[in-house]
Amino acid sequence: MLDFKSTGLLLDFYELTMAQSYFRHRFKAQATFDLFVRDFPQNRSYFLFAGLEDVLRYLKNLKFSQEDLDYLERLGFAEDFLTYLGRLRFHGEVWAMPEGTVFFPGEPVIRITGSLIETQIVESFLLNAVNLSTMIATKASRIVAAADGRRVYDFSLRRTHGTDAALKAARSAYLAGFRGTSNVLASKLYDIPAVGTMAHSFVMSFSSELESFRAFFETFPNRCILLVDTYDTQKGVANAIKVAKEFKARGYRLKAVRLDSGDLVKLSQTARKMLDRCGLRGVKILASGDLDEYKIEKLVLKGAAIDDFGVGTKMGVSADSPSLDVIYKISEVTNKEGVFLPTMKLSEKKVTLPGRKQVFRVFDKEGVLKKDIIGLETERLGEPLLKKMMVAGDVVYPLKPFSEVRENARKNLDSLKKSFKRLKGGCPHPVGLSPRLKKMIQVLSKQLRARQQTKALI
Amino acid sequence: MLDFKSTGLLLDFYELTMAQSYFRHRFKAQATFDLFVRDFPQNRSYFLFAGLEDVLRYLKNLKFSQEDLDYLERLGFAEDFLTYLGRLRFHGEVWAMPEGTVFFPGEPVIRITGSLIETQIVESFLLNAVNLSTMIATKASRIVAAADGRRVYDFSLRRTHGTDAALKAARSAYLAGFRGTSNVLASKLYDIPAVGTMAHSFVMSFSSELESFRAFFETFPNRCILLVDTYDTQKGVANAIKVAKEFKARGYRLKAVRLDSGDLVKLSQTARKMLDRCGLRGVKILASGDLDEYKIEKLVLKGAAIDDFGVGTKMGVSADSPSLDVIYKISEVTNKEGVFLPTMKLSEKKVTLPGRKQVFRVFDKEGVLKKDIIGLETERLGEPLLKKMMVAGDVVYPLKPFSEVRENARKNLDSLKKSFKRLKGGCPHPVGLSPRLKKMIQVLSKQLRARQQTKALI
Repeated sequence: MLDFKSTGLLLDFYELTMAQSYFRHRFKAQATFDLFVRDFPQNRSYFLFAGLEDVLRYLKNLKFSQEDLDYLERLGFAEDFLTYLGRLRFHGEVWAMPEGTVFFPGEPVIRITGSLIETQIVESFLLNAVNLSTMIATKASRIVAAADGRRVYDFSLRRTHGTDAALKAARSAYLAGFRGTSNVLASKLYDIPAVGTMAHSFVMSFSSELESFRAFFETFPNRCILLVDTYDTQKGVANAIKVAKEFKARGYRLKAVRLDSGDLVKLSQTARKMLDRCGLRGVKILASGDLDEYKIEKLVLKGAAIDDFGVGTKMGVSADSPSLDVIYKISEVTNKEGVFLPTMKLSEKKVTLPGRKQVFRVFDKEGVLKKDIIGLETERLGEPLLKKMMVAGDVVYPLKPFSEVRENARKNLDSLKKSFKRLKGGCPHPVGLSPRLKKMIQVLSKQLRARQQTKALI
Repeated sequence: MLDFKSTGLLLDFYELTMAQSYFRHRFKAQATFDLFVRDFPQNRSYFLFAGLEDVLRYLKNLKFSQEDLDYLERLGFAEDFLTYLGRLRFHGEVWAMPEGTVFFPGEPVIRITGSLIETQIVESFLLNAVNLSTMIATKASRIVAAADGRRVYDFSLRRTHGTDAALKAARSAYLAGFRGTSNVLASKLYDIPAVGTMAHSFVMSFSSELESFRAFFETFPNRCILLVDTYDTQKGVANAIKVAKEFKARGYRLKAVRLDSGDLVKLSQTARKMLDRCGLRGVKILASGDLDEYKIEKLVLKGAAIDDFGVGTKMGVSADSPSLDVIYKISEVTNKEGVFLPTMKLSEKKVTLPGRKQVFRVFDKEGVLKKDIIGLETERLGEPLLKKMMVAGDVVYPLKPFSEVRENARKNLDSLKKSFKRLKGGCPHPVGLSPRLKKMIQVLSKQLRARQQTKALI
């Protein structure tokens, strides 16, 4: 949905003021930035990485149109800087975890090295893209786990934050193990099965529920799902059964009934009994209505007779944690002689990790994730998770078909011990720093504190 | 950002299955739908309506391209239905509250009458658009109120849910009284002042904080804001003062310092004292860092010396209530003779209001909102809030410049008693139903219950 021809200005104003100042003072400087999540939001004990495809497409297409430059001129940017900006393309090197990789706070998921200006101005978009898709993929994977083998579908379009979010939520949910989406455009763009039932308004548009059920079944004899709670759920199920029998006689099978309100445990059990009693064992029960992983876990534990879940708002906005603490921080920058020097931020509670880093994963013999180590790029401490994605602005990593990304997510989630998948109070994150990185932090913080002290006293 | 050429498929799959069934069984049927919010999310006691401009643009441009139709054919839709869909345009009548109107749960903010198919399939987009913009406008208006006259800026781009949300959040926040945005594209599209400072990475890209401050001031001598918390806030303020004095001697004024972490009350008071002591009374203090209306209210109460607030994530995702219970419900539909009959939903806790309705507002002599009455369209019970926006698919309401929409929001918010603006425990909502509407509900629920009873027993 995003038109990459017009993304030039989709950035924070300060990226451009900084860029103009770099243009004047540090034009030849090179830098490395890390994108990571600082902390877990409540009830999370892992993240599922998504959003990289959008990031690479953005970097590949980054440019400022003449219209963009005209607007920036009106905002007071300097002519020579705008001339430079008009020619700017992204030429950096990008390392990243493949989509579908499980990761933890503090671990760089994207690492970018290149001209200071180029690596700085892409910050806003990268944070925006990774925040949304990773947040939703993580949330969705929890819902899939709670459903414990039952199928889950994305119904979130109407409540996601805008249209771009609707598409990215459908994609991220499918990546995390959802089985389909109600969003037709997302279905088309990402090749996700399209699913849907009917709305209450459909039932209300006919003179009776029974008439509406007959009409819908007539139109879709091979994939009819009937919504049974418009007036009274039990009577709705009775009507669905009546119509199912009529069509059974003509060789058609009712696919499912959908419950959208009330006590889903009781209503689903009653519906199941009513259906079974009438020889309609094959008719599934789909439940929807403000569901999330917490409610689904309870429904499953209480023995609800639900086969499929339609999950909307709470997944689509990650309702219990609607943002991630995604951060984009500089970790090294060249000095005036062009030599890369590590750097870090020291302000209260917001210390960052210096240097060009890699994340290493250690598995046990059974392929279960044992621990991660954040080390320096040159170390070898386990399986390196950051892969080379772009060199000199060109994508060098073969982008996988979405089915393989999905498979990668499944494998990654499978490598997690069960304790990570508890909906609340999961494992603390198993990440350490390499001794060499620790040493660098120690030396550098001393240097920076001393340096600032001296300069501030001048 | 939304490309209206490709919005045809941006809908829930069930809109199209219902449409095909209507095409077969109720092709000539006309209907009226209401879009409203069912309940308050936590801590809200009014809503500020936004999102209508997107809705009208969508309705005006609604169509299915050949590519859309080809995809729908693959999904199994019938050829004759797709031929019809290819020609479909929106021809309905739309009544809505102007953007910037204050409203309450249960009140229709958009009312659409037209062919059953056309009025049904626009559901998903309309809900998506109104949910986001109204949620953000409402949240932003609370933040403006908490800031109690201090200026508030939108810094949310990096954490909004995708790119469409970033633009709509910036617009909705400005509509609600914010004074600018960091989002350059939103600034350009909606003519919102662009604002920004610098990132920690800027400071870290120079060999010292002092050097970075000098470089930035040099580049923007007339609008320099310095971020002072990269290493140590107090030392950062000292460095900012040092540089401010150097530039003062050359005739330039430091605009502000920005605090982004730590105890903002203490740090701002200390910074204020340090600045004032050095004759820099004119230098403002801007604070940011995970702020929302609750934190800002506390900062103001505790006497923080903050002039301007930069508000990001928590406004941009409406963190404490990241969705609204927006609903789109059918309220009347024609019978086989073409006569409009009211209809309503009876399922547990989700009863809807039947008939073609209007919302009437009653003010006291001072122009303070006294109460609202939801009545039938033909009644006259106060100032009618729903205005005629589209007739036969054409926009007939003169769309106002954004400055007037903003002014309308201000007037609407001013008409609310202070008790509505409490951040928690505000007024219960002052909405009643007209006697005629109540009567209609009573008669109709009886009829519907009786009718379903009879049919279910057949």
